[in-house]
This record gives sequence, structure tokens and C-alpha cells, in this order.
Amino acid sequence: MEEQLRRLLAAISPLDEEAMAAARRRQAELAKPPGSLGRLEDLSVQLSGITGRVRNVIEKKHLLVFAADNGVAEEGVSSAPQSVTLQQTVNLTRAKTGASVLCRHFGCGITVTDVGVKGPVPEPKVVDRKVRNSTGNIALGPAMTREEAVRAILAGAQTALDTPADVLGVGEMGIGNTTTSAAVLAVLLPAPVEAVTGRGGGLTEAAFEKKKAVIAQALAVNRPDPADPVDVLAKVGGLDLCAMCGAFLGAAASRRPAVIDGFISAVAALCAWRLCPTVRGYLIPSHASFEIGYRLAMEAMDLKPMLLLDMRLGEGSGCPLAFEILSAACAVLNDMATFSQAGIDDGYLEPIRRGDSFTVEEKP
Amino acid sequence: MEEQLRRLLAAISPLDEEAMAAARRRQAELAKPPGSLGRLEDLSVQLSGITGRVRNVIEKKHLLVFAADNGVAEEGVSSAPQSVTLQQTVNLTRAKTGASVLCRHFGCGITVTDVGVKGPVPEPKVVDRKVRNSTGNIALGPAMTREEAVRAILAGAQTALDTPADVLGVGEMGIGNTTTSAAVLAVLLPAPVEAVTGRGGGLTEAAFEKKKAVIAQALAVNRPDPADPVDVLAKVGGLDLCAMCGAFLGAAASRRPAVIDGFISAVAALCAWRLCPTVRGYLIPSHASFEIGYRLAMEAMDLKPMLLLDMRLGEGSGCPLAFEILSAACAVLNDMATFSQAGIDDGYLEPIRRGDSFTVEEKP
Repeated sequence: MEEQLRRLLAAISPLDEEAMAAARRRQAELAKPPGSLGRLEDLSVQLSGITGRVRNVIEKKHLLVFAADNGVAEEGVSSAPQSVTLQQTVNLTRAKTGASVLCRHFGCGITVTDVGVKGPVPEPKVVDRKVRNSTGNIALGPAMTREEAVRAILAGAQTALDTPADVLGVGEMGIGNTTTSAAVLAVLLPAPVEAVTGRGGGLTEAAFEKKKAVIAQALAVNRPDPADPVDVLAKVGGLDLCAMCGAFLGAAASRRPAVIDGFISAVAALCAWRLCPTVRGYLIPSHASFEIGYRLAMEAMDLKPMLLLDMRLGEGSGCPLAFEILSAACAVLNDMATFSQAGIDDGYLEPIRRGDSFTVEEKP
Repeated sequence: MEEQLRRLLAAISPLDEEAMAAARRRQAELAKPPGSLGRLEDLSVQLSGITGRVRNVIEKKHLLVFAADNGVAEEGVSSAPQSVTLQQTVNLTRAKTGASVLCRHFGCGITVTDVGVKGPVPEPKVVDRKVRNSTGNIALGPAMTREEAVRAILAGAQTALDTPADVLGVGEMGIGNTTTSAAVLAVLLPAPVEAVTGRGGGLTEAAFEKKKAVIAQALAVNRPDPADPVDVLAKVGGLDLCAMCGAFLGAAASRRPAVIDGFISAVAALCAWRLCPTVRGYLIPSHASFEIGYRLAMEAMDLKPMLLLDMRLGEGSGCPLAFEILSAACAVLNDMATFSQAGIDDGYLEPIRRGDSFTVEEKP
């Protein structure tokens, strides 16, 4: 099982520098001040590095949602009951939840995969890759065994590999997973529990204090090894986090961009990056989550969000909008006129391309 | 002429509070932690206030681009020659420029209106509402007469009124217009020239110093009245800025949302807001422009960008992506399940709606 994970990591190769250089050359030829389309230019170059082609299109967009229950919910760390995991897992397949409504609106596919929901899921559209029924309560012991963590990572990777799409988004449904994500992040950075723990779906002051105490207890009881992301995920993480980590790895192994949603997705991406730093080139941020740990996870990977929407729903709800930004980046590179096509005198434009200035001499 | 402007301002009425309250009630009923979709929720409520209907759809999206030359270009304050205004004005109608490529990509209409390009525009698709051939050089005297400023404002308003769309974006093409925008902003805030002046399309250090000196000179020579936005626009603004200001007013007068692009668009929106504070309810931000004055203009109106893309192209290039965010906001309000439709036990969810927490008692 660990051998399979090693093979997966070995299959992830660096971005194609030649394609990126060619994409940068094309961006420099487009009729605009250099760099004036900012991150749309960067995204187009990154995508060239991912696919090895200068010109790309984002036609098939797909959100992968991984659902699992977290035993720590029994500590009262969430504003919603654990039964909401099952209900929203089902609702995600029916275009009734936030993320699934956005997927339908923007024409994105969505695959909801059960990697650890407690009990049977009465909806055949939910893909069954259940590793176990919920994790254990991390306040009392490990979330799962190491072998289960690896199985969940591989389940997420396989889901990504099995999904034909030009871009994948990685989201989750799992009551209690801001708690497990904060625990994982506190170990990996490392950072104090206070710095990485937010109010999740909306906690009272008392419940928020309880949440931080539960995380501190989970770290003390389990003592995960910060140098071993699989150990951290197994001891204080969750099956949803494991599968999401695997999905990022699977996307990178199949040379597709993978969009990070909010806090939980960012922590899963951080785990993937720690397992294989090369994965970073395949990561694309979406929105700045309201959860405080999000910023730290992103800073650790030197990534910056593209959308400021104060969202904190999860489910992958930030991904569909990021897909649109990525497709816009492709359109710019593919369809804008170059300086020569735009009929703008080259003599004038040489200085613009070099990034310096000159006094205007009006053309006669 | 000024009487027509007064009538336009009088036609702008406040948002519909009743429709907004109903939209807020619906958002509270949707199956998600309250507020978890952040600004998507706020946008849906704002749109209800604008249209007077709780449910809205963004089907027709339209970008209005106003093109004009600025006499101050002869001071050497731009990285591109003045002839680029005419060329890109034409290219905007041919889906060759950044903004027009994005419009075609996202299925937005685009109308390019000449309100002051220097010389004839040899492209019939460019709508001719030319007020004059370029403005005067603000470093030496007023950009235009007050009457011309009012005519340009009304031309922009009429363009908005004439455009059938569910949302309008407001962009520009005009070499030299980051200089005029900085001058207008410095007067209206008020703020020192250094605080509002950026490098535009990309200036050398020397040209950047020249630009700031030119703006300071323009303010000293013209002494615009900060309490009179029309005076400020006439003396140190531009025909593009005037028309954009008018377009924001026209969108509000016809109860449609108007999307602000980058720096120049934000300054035009600020002028509209100063002429009629009620217009603010109709304004929708898009991306955080790289230009430093942008942030100050937005703070003055208490508006926050939604997209962090380091863009500084202008043309309205940030609007098409903002249209997608707005349409996503509508989809969420229209299509998400309510708590009762989601089949989630109401007894459990009452506490979520009130925003407080509770310890989970697992359902049997």
C-alpha cells in the first residue's frame, strides 16, 4: 500500500519549462503593456507548464467532493450535527447545495465520493470508496490507522485519475473537519492552536474555546510526527483530508491543474505539497476563506487567493468561479492580437515591451 | 444642459428595502451556515434592491467602453503613444484586445463609444458620440469647458440607458487617462498627488516623476473646486472619465447594477457618487487594480474588490469576470435548497440559523 503511494509520488513530474517559456514569449507579443493582465498571464503560463502545450482550453471542468465523518464531532466542536454530513453528501448530487448549484450554473461536472461517511449512503450517485465508517475521536486517540490513511489518499488519487477533465477542483463535506484541518495545520507548520483555529460554520465563544482545547488535547494524546504527513493525517486528520490530499496528487500525476477551495482544501493541498513539493506547480488557488488558518496554509505554499468573497461554506464552492478565471486566462493567451496583428507600429511598441517609457511624438 | 443632468440625478432612487429584506429572509432559509456564502449572499441581496425582485438572473451582460484622447499625453506621461487610443478603440470592436476577448469568451456584449478620440474613427461599429477631438492639455489649462463635460456625462448616461442588459460594466480606452484620473482623485478626496499616482501602463522612474509633476502643475494651473465634481472633471479630467461617470448614473437611473473595472473606472464611479450618493447602491466592484489610487477611491466609497488578479489593463477587462460572480450569486439564491427542502431536521437547525452552537447529540 505504501509502495503504491510511493509510485504515485514518483509519477509527478515538474512543469514543462519549454512550454512555459513559449507561453511567456507569446504573452510578451500580445498587444498590451507587459504584465498588465497580471495573474491571468501567470495562469496561462502555468497551464502551459502543466499540459506541455502553449495554447490550452478549459472545456471540461470537474469538482471532486470527498465526504467523510469525523469522530471528533462528538466533542461538540461543530455548529451542525454529524447527520448533516450524510444529508449534504446526498444533496450535493442533486444540485441543491451551494457548490453543486454553482457547478450546474457554470456547467462543471461534480463527483461526490464517500470515503468515510458514518453508515450507508442511500444514493447510488455517491461513489462508494468508503475506507471506514467515520474516523475515531482524535481527542481520545488516532483518527485512523496509517494503512487506512494511505488507502484514503489512494482513493482520492484514483478518483482524480478516473475523472476526465481539463481542470479539477477539490472540495469536501464532513462535519468536524475544520477541527481536524486545524490540528493537521498546527503540526505541519508548526503553529500554535490559536493561530490556526477558526469558528468553522459558526460557533459561540464557549464552543470556540472548547474546539481549541479539543485540538490541543488531540495533539498531546497523539503526538504526530511533523516530518511525516501520513502520520499527521492518520493521527489527527480525517478521511476527507486524506482523500483530498490524494486528489491533488492524482491531478498532478495526470498533469492536470487542481483548484484549492477554502481552508480544508488548502490544508489537504499542504499535505500533498509536503509529500511531494513538485505538486505545487499544479495547484491553483481560488477564494480567500474566512477561516483564519487558510492564510497560513497558503503562505506556507507561497500561494495567493484570486477571489475575495468572504466565503466559508466548503464543499468546493470556490472552485467553479476559479475555473472561470482559468478559462479566461486561456482565452486571453489564445485570442488576443499580437502587436503586429493589432496594427500598432512596432517602432513605437518596442519600448513598451522593454517596460520603459518615452515621450510621445505624435505620428503625423 | 445642466438641467438635463439634474433630471438624470433626480431619476436615481434608493434600493428597494422591501425586496432586500425578502432576499435576506430567503438567504437565511437556505441550507448553509448563515453568511457562509459571504459576498455572494450580499450581491444577491443588493441585486434584489436594484431590481425590486427577490429572484434575478443575469442573462444579458454588457460592457460599455468609452474612448477619448487626453491632451496631457503630449507631456510624455504615458508609456504608449496617443495613436494607441484610436487603434485599440477599433480593435475593441474586433475581439482582439484583452477586454473584448474576455467579453466574447463569456458571452457579454460590448459597445465601444467614441466621446473624444482625436480625429475620425474609421470603424462604423464604434458609436459616435464625440464631444470634441481630444481634450486640452491639463498641465496648461482646462481639459474642456463645463458645457462639454456635461455633454460627455450625458452621452455616457444615454449610452447606458440605450443598452438593454441585466448588468453593465464600465471601461475605457484613452492614453493618458491614469494621469487625469489621479488628478481628479487628488482633488476629490483630497489627497496628495504622490498618494494617488501610479505607473499606469508601465513608466520608468524618470517618466513617473514627470507624471507626478504634471499632475501637480495641472492642479495649480486649474484650481478645480473639490465641491463641484463637474468642475473637477472639466478642468483636470477627461471625456472618457465624464462619459464613464455618466454611464454609472445612467445604469442607476434605469435600475441596473454597474460594475466598476479598475482605477479609472473607480474614479469615474467616485465622481458619480459625489454627484448623487444614492448611486452607490448600484455599484459593484470587480478586481483590485494594481494602480495605487484605486484603493483610495474604493475606500472613499466603502467598496471592496472581489478579484485579486494584479490586473492593470483597463478597457473594462475586470468586468466580464465580475459578471460571472454576480450571476453565481443569483444562482445560489434561486436554486439552493432551503433547510426544509434539504430534508435536514429543523430542530437541529434552529441553532445554526440563530448563529450559535450546541453540543451534538447524535440522532438515533
